[in-house]
Amino acid sequence: MPEVFIGKKPLTNYVMAVVMQFMQGANEVVIKARGRNISRAVDVAERVRKRFLAGQVDVGDIKIDSEEVVDPATGQKRTVSTIEIKLVKK
Amino acid sequence: MPEVFIGKKPLTNYVMAVVMQFMQGANEVVIKARGRNISRAVDVAERVRKRFLAGQVDVGDIKIDSEEVVDPATGQKRTVSTIEIKLVKK
Repeated sequence: MPEVFIGKKPLTNYVMAVVMQFMQGANEVVIKARGRNISRAVDVAERVRKRFLAGQVDVGDIKIDSEEVVDPATGQKRTVSTIEIKLVKK
Repeated sequence: MPEVFIGKKPLTNYVMAVVMQFMQGANEVVIKARGRNISRAVDVAERVRKRFLAGQVDVGDIKIDSEEVVDPATGQKRTVSTIEIKLVKK
């Protein structure tokens, strides 16, 4: 299943990436993000759902979790939250 | 159903608020947040689930949405994403 991983680029990049997946025939697309980008993942899902593909996709399953990562700067372990938001073609 | 709305205070405040609700007998607690605080809402849910009440609560339904708000500073309308994360006692 196609995935779009949210990073630091402008939101529109990710919105377009999701829309393109649906345009190319995908029935489901998963938007993934970690840490502070989790809010942006929800922004992307909502812009696709309510604006770019209004009435054409629904929010499917949403999963949250967390994982331990080693902070490259300090070498210390810390826990980072994650989200997966599935958008499904109606 | 008890709700904890995530704002700008330290995460621990909200983690404790959720834990207290379960200690006082709640079977379900909904963690709510908007905008940039959405990532913090996931952090709170994960800390409760994996640390403070490890093995005692599950993540239930997660809802995302968005709403139009008027920016008090500029008077302009803008869209803000929202999340609701339900934690359920096992």
